[in-house]
Order: sequence, then structure tokens, then C-alpha cells
Amino acid sequence: MMSTGNHRAGATAAPPRPWLPRLWLAALVCLAGGTTAKPVTVADLLARSPAADWRTPDPENTLYLELERGRVVIELASRVAPVHVANIRALARAHYFDGLAIVRVQDDYVVQWDDQTHRRPVPSQVHPSVEFTAVAGADARFQVLPDRDVYAPEVGFLDGFPAARDPRSHLVWLAHCYGMVGAGRDDPPESDATEMYAVIGHAPRQLDRNVALVGRVLQGMELLSSLPRGSGEMGFYTSSEAPVPIRSARLAADVPKAQRTPIEVLRTDSATFRAVLDQRRERHEPWFKFSPGRIDLCNVPLPVRAVHPDHLNL
Amino acid sequence: MMSTGNHRAGATAAPPRPWLPRLWLAALVCLAGGTTAKPVTVADLLARSPAADWRTPDPENTLYLELERGRVVIELASRVAPVHVANIRALARAHYFDGLAIVRVQDDYVVQWDDQTHRRPVPSQVHPSVEFTAVAGADARFQVLPDRDVYAPEVGFLDGFPAARDPRSHLVWLAHCYGMVGAGRDDPPESDATEMYAVIGHAPRQLDRNVALVGRVLQGMELLSSLPRGSGEMGFYTSSEAPVPIRSARLAADVPKAQRTPIEVLRTDSATFRAVLDQRRERHEPWFKFSPGRIDLCNVPLPVRAVHPDHLNL
Repeated sequence: MMSTGNHRAGATAAPPRPWLPRLWLAALVCLAGGTTAKPVTVADLLARSPAADWRTPDPENTLYLELERGRVVIELASRVAPVHVANIRALARAHYFDGLAIVRVQDDYVVQWDDQTHRRPVPSQVHPSVEFTAVAGADARFQVLPDRDVYAPEVGFLDGFPAARDPRSHLVWLAHCYGMVGAGRDDPPESDATEMYAVIGHAPRQLDRNVALVGRVLQGMELLSSLPRGSGEMGFYTSSEAPVPIRSARLAADVPKAQRTPIEVLRTDSATFRAVLDQRRERHEPWFKFSPGRIDLCNVPLPVRAVHPDHLNL
Repeated sequence: MMSTGNHRAGATAAPPRPWLPRLWLAALVCLAGGTTAKPVTVADLLARSPAADWRTPDPENTLYLELERGRVVIELASRVAPVHVANIRALARAHYFDGLAIVRVQDDYVVQWDDQTHRRPVPSQVHPSVEFTAVAGADARFQVLPDRDVYAPEVGFLDGFPAARDPRSHLVWLAHCYGMVGAGRDDPPESDATEMYAVIGHAPRQLDRNVALVGRVLQGMELLSSLPRGSGEMGFYTSSEAPVPIRSARLAADVPKAQRTPIEVLRTDSATFRAVLDQRRERHEPWFKFSPGRIDLCNVPLPVRAVHPDHLNL
């Protein structure tokens, strides 16, 4: 994991190990798995996955944020936050974000983009709303993760996004994991998605149910997370720091097919995803001496893969 | 929180709120708090904290990693991982890291520095060891956080670092939160701190008890977290990408006093720290409509402040 694969020469004898590794468990699984002793990796699982375990995000729910350094691909949670996603479609189609900038990069927290001048006209189709929890019907689509959570009674997945649920109230909401995208707001709580942010640090789950999450970065996350941090309060860029220009924000549906990013996402209701979860909980790789046995919602990989354009049904 | 403080003009009427905010609780606390309705912030708590609630890190336990962009200040966990910290002192004093480079930046995971050539002589005082859990005696110093955790039976703080404990075995170990620094290793599990890493993403807690954590970044974290991600496997820089040079790594004790970074850390056994924890659990600020009520270990702020050199007892 941390290793380069090269074992340093000259290592002296090791002191006694102060713990009992769970290697017997790994050994058992390896034996059960077949003739090879090599434990299965996530890469193995993805390589052997059937095509049906993958889905192509809807171009109407895919936003391309074009920066000078490249494209950030965002999948929009249209069934969870339909008003905000309709707003984002209207804003993108009005070219509202074009020429705006990333104005805030706060370390271990968020990247934010909006119109700091508040001078841009907002299309009349854009309506402020409160969508902190998913609209009715989400409960039936929620896939429970059996692992514990610090903040919510239950966690899991909703439409492919990390989510949480209160089984008493039947409320479901998206979770502020790394790479999630939300609609910033002031107080009162309505937001309209003219201000957007992406999480670039340890999951700020205290924001759950306090802001509308509207999607997730599928590709290009490093273009946001590696931006220089702003030196102003809350990570805002000051006048001496150049904001990061947004060339444009477009729905994939509005981009010529040849210019779209051919991408597929692993279905969270697939057998491959369940196998990935098991692998990540137990970590049978020999490098691991202590099996975590559990997984944090925001540590669950949500695999995305590039596909050859000819094989993509866009 | 996400706000710029300006409320967008022209907001239309809000739809009914689908949840019951805990504003009554916030109101109650504000009333109990005195004559002002303004809830207390972490900044308020720190501003009014007594001097005795702060500590100055020991210069023998403070490592300065000097990059071209500035200084990263790391506090070493000498009582938790004494062999590794002794190794780091010996390596720094032999100028082992000077002229090496950051060779790996993996998004949402770690930054790593080491000698990829494996040609540098390692001082004879450096001994590989396994320090995945704290040496005996740590149990008595562990401060329990009452909140839940996904991975460990108990979490809290040890010598000012985020940590976890198994009350049955009395084992205590440091936790892989954002900003924690560890000693990378291959397999077998011994490490000697010639390879080091810092966590730059969502806490990879699956690494707990699998690697020796040796400290925490106190200042300059953004110099590591905003580095370009490596395009190679596991985020290693490839031959086409310039590694990030390390000018030097020195103990603060070996740097002239005038060149040290004057810094203080809030004590985790102080009343101010307990008040910070309460504030962060309940979030009485009016922006919050739903109180999280709990806090994740890795979301607990561990405040650090610059002090005037004249006021610092170095």
C-alpha cells in the first residue's frame, strides 16, 4: 500500500509483534478461492466484471465543468434533488457559469465557484428551494450498508451516491463524502445552485441535512483538490490571488457526441460492487496485518472507468 | 458556512420545509448563554482561552520539512512510537532527507517522500521496528471521546493526537486522520521512517494498526495537499513529472531559535478543548438547521496558533 514494491536491504531482525494478525482468515479465504494463494484485488474484481454491472450516466445528468487544466465530470442527482438539478440545467444552458471562477479553496474542506459580483442575470426557470433530504420515494431505492456510522442511524447508497437514512422517519439524504458536489447557501436555507461547491477533504458530515447535495465528481477530481488554497477567511482567494477561471459548464447532452467523456460507473446494486465492498472491508492482501473488518461509507470506492467511444451507448 | 455573507436578491418564496429543525435547542442555549443571542464560535472560544490551555511542542519532537514553497511543521509522537521518532531524529541529524523529493501524491489518500534509489546510507542508529500500537503505558493517558466510531471500539486523544483504543486488550493506537504522518513500509511489517507519508484525503482508517503513525502536521498542510497528483500507479510521479524537492528536514531543536516557527497547540485535556468539542457537536450557529449532535474523530479541530516569538518559551 505505502510500498514501492522494493524491500529495503539491510533490515535487521524484527522485534516481537505485539498483536495477533488475522492472517489465518486471509489464508482461509485464499484456499477457498481456488488454486492460487494470491488474494483478489479490486482491480481483479473490476477486470472480470460483466458489462451489465456498469451503467452509463445520463447525458442530461452529466455536467462538464471546463477549467484551463481540464474537464471535471459531475454526475447530477436528478431524482434526489430535482429542483436543484433542473436549476443547474437551466443555468448551464444560459451559460451562467461561463467566465466565472473558482473563488474559494479551503484546505480539508471545499472548493467553491459562484458569481461573487451577484450581477449575472439568473434565468427565470431557476427556483430557490430546500432539498436537504431526498424527495419522497427515495426510501424504496436506498441500499443499506451494514457498517456503523458516526452521524446517521443508517448509511448506504441512493442512485449510486453515498447516502444516509433514518429508518424511523423514512427520510433519506445524500452524504458529504469526498468528491460530493453541493449547492451553497446563505441563511435562510433556500439555495438555487448559482453557488456550488465540491468536498476536497475529510467528509464534513456535519453538513448533511444542512445543504442540498446535487451530485458527485466522476472524473477530474484532482483538478479541484490540487488547487492552491485561498489565503483569505474560509479559504477565499484574496485580491492578490488569481481566481481559477471556469471556461464553461455544459451538460453532456449539449456537447457534440465526439467531445463527450466516455465513462461508465459501477452499479451499486451489482454483484461486483458487493464483492468490492467485501474486499475493502477485510483486506486480504498480505500487506494488511490487521483486517479493518468494517468500512466507512466515505471510504467505499465508487468505481468509474473510461470506455472506448464505440462501445458507449450515448 | 458555504455562505459569502451576502444573501442573493430576488429569492422567491420557499417550499415547505420537509424536516423539523432543532432551532429550539439553539434558542435555548442562546438564552442560557447570557444576554446576547449570538452563539459562541470556535474563534470566540480560542480568543478567550487562558494561556495555560496551550502548550508549546518540544523542539526535539518537531520536524521542519523545508520545501521550495515553504515549511511543513510536523509534531512527532515520541511517546507513542519512540523507536520511529528516534530514527527520524537520527535521519534528520544525518541530513538523510535533504535533497530527496516527494515522489508520490495520490488523490484522496497520501503524499509520500523517500529515497527511491535506495542508495542513501542509513545511519547505524536507525532500527526497523513495528509500532502499530502505542508502547505500554499509553492506556492511562488516553482521553475518550464519547462519540461513535466506524472502525474502533473507542476513539479519543493520546498526547494531543487522534487515537483509538480497544478497552478489552488495553491497546491504544494513533488514527489515520487528515494531516497525520506515518512511516511507510513494505511487507514484512517493519519500518524505519526512511519512507514517510502524510494523509491528504478522507481518513484511511483501514490503515490503523497496519502502519506506524509517527506524528501530525501542525502547519503547512496546504503545501502538501495542494501538490499536483502523480499520474503513475498509486499516484507516483512518472518520469515526465518533476518530483517536489525537499530542501531539508531538520528538528526544530537543531534550528537557530530565530528561525523556528513560533507555534502553540491547544491542550486536548483543557476546558477550552472540551468547549470546542461541544460547539462542533451541536453547531448552534443559525446557519445550521439540523444539529449533527455527534462528531467524527477526524472532524475534531486540533487548534494550532502562531505566537509572537517573544512570548514563546523555546
